[in-house]
Formats: sequence, C-alpha cells, structure tokens
Amino acid sequence: MLPIVKGLIKGDRRSLARAITIVDNHEPESRQIIKEIFGRTGKARTVGFTGPGGAGKSSLVGRLIPECQALGRKVAVLAVDPTSPITGGAILGDRVRMLTNLEDERVFMRSMASRGAVGGVSKSLRNAIRVLDAAGYDLILVESVGAGQLEIEITKAVDLTVVVFTPNTGDNVQAVKAGLTEVGDVYVVNKADIDGAGVLYNTIVDLIGGTERKPDVLKTSAKTGKGVKELAHSIEKLLKERSINYKERQRRMLEDELKDMVSDIVELKVASMLAQNKKYSAIIDRLVDKETDPYVAAEQVAASLFR
Amino acid sequence: MLPIVKGLIKGDRRSLARAITIVDNHEPESRQIIKEIFGRTGKARTVGFTGPGGAGKSSLVGRLIPECQALGRKVAVLAVDPTSPITGGAILGDRVRMLTNLEDERVFMRSMASRGAVGGVSKSLRNAIRVLDAAGYDLILVESVGAGQLEIEITKAVDLTVVVFTPNTGDNVQAVKAGLTEVGDVYVVNKADIDGAGVLYNTIVDLIGGTERKPDVLKTSAKTGKGVKELAHSIEKLLKERSINYKERQRRMLEDELKDMVSDIVELKVASMLAQNKKYSAIIDRLVDKETDPYVAAEQVAASLFR
Repeated sequence: MLPIVKGLIKGDRRSLARAITIVDNHEPESRQIIKEIFGRTGKARTVGFTGPGGAGKSSLVGRLIPECQALGRKVAVLAVDPTSPITGGAILGDRVRMLTNLEDERVFMRSMASRGAVGGVSKSLRNAIRVLDAAGYDLILVESVGAGQLEIEITKAVDLTVVVFTPNTGDNVQAVKAGLTEVGDVYVVNKADIDGAGVLYNTIVDLIGGTERKPDVLKTSAKTGKGVKELAHSIEKLLKERSINYKERQRRMLEDELKDMVSDIVELKVASMLAQNKKYSAIIDRLVDKETDPYVAAEQVAASLFR
Repeated sequence: MLPIVKGLIKGDRRSLARAITIVDNHEPESRQIIKEIFGRTGKARTVGFTGPGGAGKSSLVGRLIPECQALGRKVAVLAVDPTSPITGGAILGDRVRMLTNLEDERVFMRSMASRGAVGGVSKSLRNAIRVLDAAGYDLILVESVGAGQLEIEITKAVDLTVVVFTPNTGDNVQAVKAGLTEVGDVYVVNKADIDGAGVLYNTIVDLIGGTERKPDVLKTSAKTGKGVKELAHSIEKLLKERSINYKERQRRMLEDELKDMVSDIVELKVASMLAQNKKYSAIIDRLVDKETDPYVAAEQVAASLFR
C-alpha cells in the first residue's frame, strides 16, 4: 500500500490533502491511489450545492456543517471552482470567505481548481469524493462555483442536489423558470430575511407543485442561522430514503463514469491515430480540399476504429 | 439542392436564419445543409470577442460593424450564449442590448443558444460560420457570453481573438494575470474614458511585452466610438498577415473538428455497447461489487472496441 494511502486511512490530514491534489491534477499516482482505496469506498453520501453566484452558498454550507455534525456526520466540503482563463481571479473571494468559516479540526475543506475541460472536473470530483470516503468522511458537501455544464456534471456525481436561491437579484424568478425545476432535490431560498424572499418562495413552490416528485422547499438565513437545522434534517431524511436504492444508483453513476473514462481513452487514441496514420492524414487532405465533408469524413474514421 | 440552401445562397435572410437554427439545434437536416454548402465555404474570416461580463463586448461589436463595413466587409455577428440551466434568464439582457444596435439590413445578427454540452457549442458555431460564409458574409464577429471552457472552444473555432477588458471592476488586473495573455491576438481596454483605464492598459502592455508574439493593445470607448476605427484596422491587418498561412490553419481547425466528431460518434457507440452487451454489463457488475477499479474496467472496455 502506498504510504499516502496508509496515511489518509489513518486520518492524517496532510496525506489526505496531498491525495486530493494528486487526483485533482490527474497526476500519474492517481491511478494507484484509486486502485488501493476503491474497495474502501461506498459509505460516504454526497450533497451538491448549486445556484446563481451571490446566493450565499458558501456561507450556507459553512452554517450547515455543525448542524450535520450534530446529526452524527463526519463532514467534508469540496468547493469545485474551475478557474476560468478569462475571469481567473474573480472566484478567489468565495474561496477565502469559505475558509474563514472553517477552523474546525473535525471538518476537512478543499477547493478543487481543476482547470480546463468540464469532463476533467467530473473525474477530479469523483476521485476526490473517493479519497474522502476512504478517509472516513461520511458526508461530503460539494459546492459549485460557476454555472452551466459544470453544475450538470456535479449533479450527476452526487447523491442529492440542493439548489440555493436568494431574492437579491431580479432575474431569479426567470432563473427558477428556466428549467431549473428538473435539477434540485431540495430548494432553498437563502437570505430569507430580506425583501422578496416570500415571493420567491411561493414562486418555487408553485413551479414545483405541479411535478411528480415533491422536493422540499425551505427558507434559510446563513446570516442568522435560521432554517439551517431544518435543511440538515431535510438532507438526512432524503439520504435515508435514497439509501434503499443506493446500489442501483451507484451502478448508474459507475456506468456514467465508465463511459467518460472510455471516451477519454478513445479520444487519445483517435488523436494519436490522426497524428500518425497516413490514411487519416489523407482524409484531412480531402477535407481541406473540400472533396468530402466533415460528417462523411468523421464516419469513415470512426468506422475504421471499431472491430 | 435543398430549397433552404438555394435561398441562403441567393441572400434570402429567412432561409439563412432558418439554416442557422437547424445547425444550432443539430437537427437532422443539418448534415445535408453542411454537405451542400461545404464546397462554397472558405472565404469568411472570423473574429472572436471574449472577456469578463460587463466589459461592453456587445456595444463594442455594435460600434465595430460600420467600421468594418467601411473597409469593404460584409459583416455578420454571432452571439454565442449557451443558456445555463441555473442562471437561465440572466443573459437575455445582453442579447436585447445587442439587437437594438442592429437595425442595419446589411448586417446579419444571430444569437446562438445551444443548450447543453460545451462540445455542442463548437459544433453549432463551426456550422453557423459555414452557413454565413456560404451566404456571402466575409467577416463574422463572434461574441461569447459566458466564460471558461466555452471561451477556449470559441478561440479554437475562430481566426482571431480579441480580448475585451474594462477598468470597471477591481479584479481585472487579476484576470489579466490569470493566464489570459495566452488567448488574445488583440487586447482592448474598453470604456477607456473612465478611471483606471490607463493603469489597466499599462498592466496589459507590461504583461504582454515579455511574450514572443506581440499582440496589439488598444483603448476604445464603445460609448463615444473612440478607438473603434483603429480596432477595425488592427483586425484587418492581422487577418491579412494570417491569410498567408490560412490553409495550414484551416487544416488544423478541420483536424480538431474531425477529432470532436469522431469522439461524438464513438461516445454514442460506447453508450449503446454498454447498454446492450452482456460483457460490459458484467464489467459494471464487477465495478459495483468493487472486484475491479474504474481504470482497469475502462481499459478493458476500450481495448475491446478497437480493431
């Protein structure tokens, strides 16, 4: 067994932090770490927190930690924060804000900065969850910074998704309407002490009322702590309900992961084939000369790959 | 030839708009449209506009249009705006703001809303550019709304990238430093009439001064129009310089596209294999039971795919 794996299993925070860095950066050692810990995973449950920027996700997660600990959980927090090459510095604030909440030794908090591809984030996240799981953390709160495809990827990698809104901005009702109702297992109106919280709450309840599954809708205030205990209970209740079908969902998640990993391997293979083989080079020549079109060319290449 | 292709080649704006919708949504007709127009493409040049939200990209692009027309270009604008499932409504404002700039019949402006995967955006964008190219637009300005991976994808699909900053927000110097210097061919400090523009300009010049390639750094004001003509000239100059290696770059771009398309096909194939074949199902069973690990499983599946 690798010393780092021994360390993280024994509860050494340094080993744990280093192991997460390794899987986050897809360093070569990552593979051996996952191989060695994979058999020890499966106990942790994961909750994703998503929603527009400025909704107070970080503060809410900070408040939630002691409430989940009070329910017997060993809590870890992962902030997934794929730094944009353009707005690079903008998210640092969140990270710092979050860190200041967490001087508790019983909590492990990490920010994952996987630059680059969205797919890379899923891979990092799944493996970081495994590392924490093997280290004995049984509730992992995953906060997403950033929107769009990333949030969908996170939703796919966690057991439960909490969507956090706030009445702060005018376009939230818009946002709620824009298909969001599909994503959440729990909806939270945060900053419930400010104007507009009631309207937002009612809008969400209305939009969700019509759907088959009835997700919880809660009001919280990360500032005063109001409603946070209820959120912790709501999360535990849902996790318990879902533990019945846990193996089935686990299977689906592993299937997704396998697909992603196979695609990665295939992509590398395709790239090296395109780089080396004369036949592929000829197809690109024909494309450049417009003697074929991209669809036909892609099908030719794909067909030649498979048995 | 499809009537819609006939239409767009003849300059019918309705056909053009409809064709872009078809390729944007990856509708089945998309393939035939691209097949029929592919031989007519290759004349248009494309310029991407990227940078933090609020930098005034839309207004700048609006101002740039007449300047580029004055240089003999037939201009089209594509605003790539992949609506987030979370912050869905937030970007509409930009779109509307942009539209109000464009009542000119000689300009064609379209917002592309490709939901979902980042890869889907590249595909939509490449094909929308082809449609506009075949319709006779020879300068296509691509504005990106949103950050991160999307911007990298756009950069890969255009001939030239203009990065737009503004002294408005404090973290811009941060942003400039955060690896941005790799992306741009032209850097613009927009809103040059407000405080801090000089400092920001100097920061960019300093950061870029050390690099091999010397991109232009310009000050503009979309409000007054100052500097916009210079930007148009800078773009034309660079496009001219690059036209020497155009075929080589075109080849690289087609190679990228072919890789993406092959990956798409392979992904579908992998998914259907995983769904149907008992052997793959057995591998997932072993994963669920932790008798193997994801890396080994992925390699087994990938190996069985190839000739």
